[in-house]
Amino acid sequence: MTAPTPAAPTSSGAADADKPLPVDVHPAWLPPDAFRAIGSRRVHVHGSGLLVDTVTSEVARACALHGGSWVRTGDGVTADGVTADGATADGATADGATTGSADLVLRVAGPGRGTGPEGYTLHRGGTATVVEGHDPAGLLYGFFHAVQLGEQAFGAHDAGPQVHGPALARRMLDHWDNVAVHPSMGQVERGYAGGSIFWRAGRLREDLGRAADYARLLAACGINAVSVNNVNVHRTEALLLTERLDDVVTLADLFRPYGIRTHLAVTFAAPVVLGGLPTADPLDPAVRDWWRRTTEAVYARIPDFGGYLVKADSEGQPGPHGYGRTHVDGADMLAEAVAPHGGVVHWRAFVYNHRQDWRDRRTDRANAAYDAFTPHDGAFHDAVVVQVKHGPIDFQPREPVSPLIGAMPRTRLAVELQVTQEYTGQQRHVCYLAPMWSQILRFRFRGDADEGSAVGRITRGGGLVAVSNVGDDRFWTGHPLAQANLYAYGRLAWDPDADPSALLDAWAALTFPAAGPDVVAVLHAMMDRSWLTYEKYTAPLGIGFMVDPSGHYGPAVDGYEYSPWGTYHFADRDGVGVDRTLATGTGFAGRFPQPWSQVYESLDTCPDEVLLFFHHVPYGHRLQNGSTVLQHIYDTHFDGAREAEELAARWDDARVQAAVGPDLHARVRERLAEQVHSAREWCDQVNSYFYRKSGVPDAHGRPIY
Amino acid sequence: MTAPTPAAPTSSGAADADKPLPVDVHPAWLPPDAFRAIGSRRVHVHGSGLLVDTVTSEVARACALHGGSWVRTGDGVTADGVTADGATADGATADGATTGSADLVLRVAGPGRGTGPEGYTLHRGGTATVVEGHDPAGLLYGFFHAVQLGEQAFGAHDAGPQVHGPALARRMLDHWDNVAVHPSMGQVERGYAGGSIFWRAGRLREDLGRAADYARLLAACGINAVSVNNVNVHRTEALLLTERLDDVVTLADLFRPYGIRTHLAVTFAAPVVLGGLPTADPLDPAVRDWWRRTTEAVYARIPDFGGYLVKADSEGQPGPHGYGRTHVDGADMLAEAVAPHGGVVHWRAFVYNHRQDWRDRRTDRANAAYDAFTPHDGAFHDAVVVQVKHGPIDFQPREPVSPLIGAMPRTRLAVELQVTQEYTGQQRHVCYLAPMWSQILRFRFRGDADEGSAVGRITRGGGLVAVSNVGDDRFWTGHPLAQANLYAYGRLAWDPDADPSALLDAWAALTFPAAGPDVVAVLHAMMDRSWLTYEKYTAPLGIGFMVDPSGHYGPAVDGYEYSPWGTYHFADRDGVGVDRTLATGTGFAGRFPQPWSQVYESLDTCPDEVLLFFHHVPYGHRLQNGSTVLQHIYDTHFDGAREAEELAARWDDARVQAAVGPDLHARVRERLAEQVHSAREWCDQVNSYFYRKSGVPDAHGRPIY
Repeated sequence: MTAPTPAAPTSSGAADADKPLPVDVHPAWLPPDAFRAIGSRRVHVHGSGLLVDTVTSEVARACALHGGSWVRTGDGVTADGVTADGATADGATADGATTGSADLVLRVAGPGRGTGPEGYTLHRGGTATVVEGHDPAGLLYGFFHAVQLGEQAFGAHDAGPQVHGPALARRMLDHWDNVAVHPSMGQVERGYAGGSIFWRAGRLREDLGRAADYARLLAACGINAVSVNNVNVHRTEALLLTERLDDVVTLADLFRPYGIRTHLAVTFAAPVVLGGLPTADPLDPAVRDWWRRTTEAVYARIPDFGGYLVKADSEGQPGPHGYGRTHVDGADMLAEAVAPHGGVVHWRAFVYNHRQDWRDRRTDRANAAYDAFTPHDGAFHDAVVVQVKHGPIDFQPREPVSPLIGAMPRTRLAVELQVTQEYTGQQRHVCYLAPMWSQILRFRFRGDADEGSAVGRITRGGGLVAVSNVGDDRFWTGHPLAQANLYAYGRLAWDPDADPSALLDAWAALTFPAAGPDVVAVLHAMMDRSWLTYEKYTAPLGIGFMVDPSGHYGPAVDGYEYSPWGTYHFADRDGVGVDRTLATGTGFAGRFPQPWSQVYESLDTCPDEVLLFFHHVPYGHRLQNGSTVLQHIYDTHFDGAREAEELAARWDDARVQAAVGPDLHARVRERLAEQVHSAREWCDQVNSYFYRKSGVPDAHGRPIY
Repeated sequence: MTAPTPAAPTSSGAADADKPLPVDVHPAWLPPDAFRAIGSRRVHVHGSGLLVDTVTSEVARACALHGGSWVRTGDGVTADGVTADGATADGATADGATTGSADLVLRVAGPGRGTGPEGYTLHRGGTATVVEGHDPAGLLYGFFHAVQLGEQAFGAHDAGPQVHGPALARRMLDHWDNVAVHPSMGQVERGYAGGSIFWRAGRLREDLGRAADYARLLAACGINAVSVNNVNVHRTEALLLTERLDDVVTLADLFRPYGIRTHLAVTFAAPVVLGGLPTADPLDPAVRDWWRRTTEAVYARIPDFGGYLVKADSEGQPGPHGYGRTHVDGADMLAEAVAPHGGVVHWRAFVYNHRQDWRDRRTDRANAAYDAFTPHDGAFHDAVVVQVKHGPIDFQPREPVSPLIGAMPRTRLAVELQVTQEYTGQQRHVCYLAPMWSQILRFRFRGDADEGSAVGRITRGGGLVAVSNVGDDRFWTGHPLAQANLYAYGRLAWDPDADPSALLDAWAALTFPAAGPDVVAVLHAMMDRSWLTYEKYTAPLGIGFMVDPSGHYGPAVDGYEYSPWGTYHFADRDGVGVDRTLATGTGFAGRFPQPWSQVYESLDTCPDEVLLFFHHVPYGHRLQNGSTVLQHIYDTHFDGAREAEELAARWDDARVQAAVGPDLHARVRERLAEQVHSAREWCDQVNSYFYRKSGVPDAHGRPIY
């Protein structure tokens, strides 16, 4: 049996076995070498359906690359393949690639053995490694797990099947991609990696190869949902819901073979903008009917459509408040439209007054989402997922966890992270964010003893969401090392308790197969604490928003101080920080349950890293670390700038260059030079700002201007 | 004799007598009523040539509007006209409109009677008023002078001919208009009045009616030169010199009938960008030859072409420094190309390091142009005009006069003003700038006794230049009251000693013919000191650049403090200002001749209004006005914000509304609301900034945040 091509060819979305990736696009964590262990063996795939077809394609591609062989059975089909030239590798014969003599068996076993949806077991016993999916999606994830294990998947016998499954049912990426280039925000809002892989200059891209490759990368790190357009839905983007639905269908067809459901950001004003109705009032029967009919039309074309994502009554976007209605009224109307089809509505809780008077110190943006949504706990439709940014403000390098997350026990919540580095260096700075995310996901609202109060648990009802950092850049993410953030995000969404350091090493080993342990160690040393380095040379002690207002890149200590955005530090000649205590401030600390309410309220117990988020203190205030606030600002900024220089020095290592290749090395080097320069600016500007205000010199006499 | 149409029809550029202005475009200072005194009389025009044709057209249009009659003789032509319906006004008969019985005689008398080029005499004697031009241009200016006089032109006999003529031979407007819309700067760089009247979306506009009307308005206030494209010459704009020269020809044809010569901003890199040469080195014979040939081609099409305007080695624009050559090398090369044809090269002196390290307090941008150009005094070709911004920095609301202007006695200098309100409220704030310009033009470098050291005298060699504030807005200038700046600029260029208050009233009377003395008084009260009001609520004591860096509108006290632009205030908890003394500072004060060098050097004599430009002083420093620096900051900011409110209140006067019409009234009212809001922001932000830094409260206990 020598059928040279894989059977059951996949849909247009799945990668083509005999079509290599474009040579100039970086393969990220799926380089050809990552498939060597599987692709050089005898593989048997058993099962039917689209996702099993995808696994088969992957296996076929791997074997074609590395000389192994494969056979596919199930669904009344039997097919097998050998290497392209008909030769077999490793002494195996083509005939040997049967169930009985396979090295790797991949099959859909169905429910049982402790697995749940999308789960799988992995077992090394006898002569074969066996991956059994709870369902086709489980098989797909099990396959990529085996890819990641590499030779380890074929090592010594194990004690029995390991059971794997996602902790969160929805693991989603939101793309803030515009269809039409926005005059100020560009093709991708807050995108730092070139254009969109979906859209270009007002239209769906003709070449969607990158989008298909992206789907494959996402499946390999566990993502199963993608929203394909910006939450700020402009005129052209609004049309995706109706007259440009074909474009969404095309993308859904690309994502489906990788187990990814497609979601769409819609404007709340759609009944007016698209439907020609005089109102978008969610209690108006004609409006509700419009949404029902429109949604039916979407599902008629995309039966597994994920649902809607809505930014309503936020930063100028329309919403139910415009009609005197509540978030519940608005979200539930949409939920009733999608629920019969199995969809959900992601309703963002990022609601605040973005025209605040900076003179008014009683209004606190940190309270806004909490105060707007907690009264509605328990009132939302089951198909509504309230999507809450992880912090109470907006994706700063350091914020406390949003207390809203702990205050909606009867509501499905999703937590929103930001993989794109809007406020964390914009993919010009190395900033591995998984340690921050891990800290958030492990945060327990009712104290260490209450495991059930962890963010990672609470979010099971709604899932984890993040803003993607991918564009049409050849390295996907602008800064090649920012790929690690995307990878680690997917893995944390699968397992919020995963160790971010281990994820970093797993990413490095997959992405740079030529890297030995020494090079992985260099990457680890560069990246594992890079978030803390970024924090050091930017905003101190949780204060945030000391950033250039026009682009959110680079220092501007007073950049937001007199703005309408609700983001202030209140630095004067005596002290700095925002009093958010219950006793004398805005009361934000009181939005937390105990013990955190008390921990944050008291200067004695408030953690240093968020001290200025909760308290306004004199520059001479003694931190828990023993330093004064001012000397801490000086010390951390000098340290951070020095650490940026060390990062750059580490990269100038011949072993690293050899392992990552000259192109990627050059790109990272160029970005590191900018990071060193930028970190120096941050350091000198922040230190000079506080020195000029306080008049207190650095204890160590270092230069401040 | 009843020829109904004017003889010798003008070129495409001149206004057509029977074609009214589009109804929705505001006529500025040439409303139909302004022509009533002339248009209702018997007028005789005598002379020949294009500009006399223009005067004839103007007379014909006026008579058609107001029932007068006219006759034209000269150049072998005799023609006359009556009102459109054949009736005559004021008892005059059509036959009466001959030389002998005219009320107004307009003729080119040639040299003599004390006039110079572009000059004229005006005489009321016998039954007729007689305007005699030294040349056709003089007749044109004399005609518009008579328009401005209105009925006064026909009053009692005067003592004899008044002699008029321009003090400056070149009175120029530079348009920073882009041909192709610039991604960040738009169609008009620093334009606040809509699109360009010349260019639109990459091409010459098809409808150039506005450009023709503009030419007429400029002639009526004395302008005789226009540069038609941005000094930052981008890719598309560079082509105007060669393959898009047709567009320049078209504009020159529009301007010529109004006595205006057309100039072009060119890129120094043109030989490379357009000519395909490997270099733009000004000493390279091939480069010189390219410029010579290219310039010949320009003059072949535009014989009265004015010349080139060049921003070289400035803010990233290419220049001779890139080839190791000097400004003299660069400018002279171009001068040699234009001089044989009677053109000039405006070579901008706006040269400084725009990538300065803010940590470096010894480098001073204020010194840059002085230090770069004074060594070359006397070395430039006669056809080079070095164009110097009026202040040493960049069009701030208050700067000392640039000492470079007083330090180039052997060089032709033009002084550059900015009519467009980049740093003075962007045509959203009322800011009548003529008082500032007048102060600059009257500034005497060697003291009050030396009239010859006045800026207005020095600039006779090169002329006065200003950046236009006009766009395709229906009121021309966005803020209708900003028309006054354009008008007064032209009048000051004609006569640098003119009284800006009188120019304001002249503008108001022309523009609003329905306004009685009471309404003119309201406008006067609103506008005459509006520059000082703007200064009060923005930057104090000459410090400058406390402005939003992204758009130069609105306050940002630290906006430029840590930037590379060389524009700092060095405020700390103890004091503020830039030490530019010779004794302890950057030495800028020493660039002035005596007495100013000493006046600025000493804290005892430095004028308050530029104190912080020259000195860094403690907040408690006592000003000459008796106040401390800090209390002065508080007082002026509160005063300025209050004055803005008073401006708005004055405008809410029924007499004003009746006189200016509802549309214009509404537009100004809308802008005033923004001005009041913005002035309050300036006041509160600046005061809060200095309060937070100094800790010193307002002596009067007013709210500071």
